Amino acid sequence: MARVSQEHLDARRRQILDGAAVCFARNGFHATSMQDVLKAVDLSAGAVYRYFSGKEELIAAIAAEVLETVRDTLEKSARENPPPTPEVLVPRALAQMRELRPATLETGEWLFPRLMIQVWTESTRSPALTAVLAEGYAMIREAWGGMARSYQDAGLLPEDADVDAMARAMIALVQGFAAQMALFGDIPPQALADGTRALMSTRRAADGA
Amino acid sequence: MARVSQEHLDARRRQILDGAAVCFARNGFHATSMQDVLKAVDLSAGAVYRYFSGKEELIAAIAAEVLETVRDTLEKSARENPPPTPEVLVPRALAQMRELRPATLETGEWLFPRLMIQVWTESTRSPALTAVLAEGYAMIREAWGGMARSYQDAGLLPEDADVDAMARAMIALVQGFAAQMALFGDIPPQALADGTRALMSTRRAADGA
Repeated sequence: MARVSQEHLDARRRQILDGAAVCFARNGFHATSMQDVLKAVDLSAGAVYRYFSGKEELIAAIAAEVLETVRDTLEKSARENPPPTPEVLVPRALAQMRELRPATLETGEWLFPRLMIQVWTESTRSPALTAVLAEGYAMIREAWGGMARSYQDAGLLPEDADVDAMARAMIALVQGFAAQMALFGDIPPQALADGTRALMSTRRAADGA
Repeated sequence: MARVSQEHLDARRRQILDGAAVCFARNGFHATSMQDVLKAVDLSAGAVYRYFSGKEELIAAIAAEVLETVRDTLEKSARENPPPTPEVLVPRALAQMRELRPATLETGEWLFPRLMIQVWTESTRSPALTAVLAEGYAMIREAWGGMARSYQDAGLLPEDADVDAMARAMIALVQGFAAQMALFGDIPPQALADGTRALMSTRRAADGA
């Protein structure tokens, strides 16, 4: 057997993940078989199973990769001065996901949001997938929390704000916008920014609320 | 055949919807058969099919009912003076959903968020369900947009803010928080309020951003 470079292995792994993501997003996780994935990536069963034991591992790897990309985006962003605030970061997080997973339907619709809600639903039935998502979520929550602390350091967020609750709210915004895209089609980055900015510029009706 | 009151019909319909919602949320939409629903509600096939032609109609009715409840909450809220701002309304919308659909797992976990992400995933495969969700979403978007305009009227939101984008952001917050509950368990109302408030009290890093 010929010696295989790490680069080749990585490229092969990428090819499989990309092909599988398109299959899952297009036809649904349940309606996709490993045969469909083999056909889409044009590789033998032996070549694919060398990397992934099956659909569960594929979907877990896809989810983990996207979560790591978002974490990297946030960690880089936290080092900017001044730190980019949510009306910049929320569209940026979604843009990074799109860059990593650009596949579209024939209609031009971005596929990834559909894949995301499928992964969520699947995770309610798969403890292994739930574990991957829980780990990724904890990581992302920590990273968004770090962003919130950098806002406090820059005097952009009151010292007494709950940074962890803020992290969950920023994650919720990204998740919710992605869910809207999955259900009703694309949202222009400008609308993501304008909506987040409007939320940030709403004053509270009552202090006692 | 005995004369049947409207009240009786409504109660029967409610009984079926409640039972079906619990089945779907607990075992998944696909893994639930109409037989399971009949058993859960303890009614004959004839009694159930008189109201709903099958699982698709059941899930569409459940989704439509929840969306109407949220719309009603918003329309009532828009008439309050001053209008309740997002750190009040986001937890309130989720509390209303919980009141309408209180069913829990044996663990005490609120079932509805799981049902919600299942409906989303199912809708990517069902044009009929997509149509129900699209109609409900348009209605909710209009209602949240009305809230944003009431903030402007009360001087709580700048006049040049994009009320429709703001509506989408508020919906995204509710959807995202619900997704987090479905995946990782309940979130206390206080954390929903604190996170939303922190987001609202973040100043922008740069005007040019």
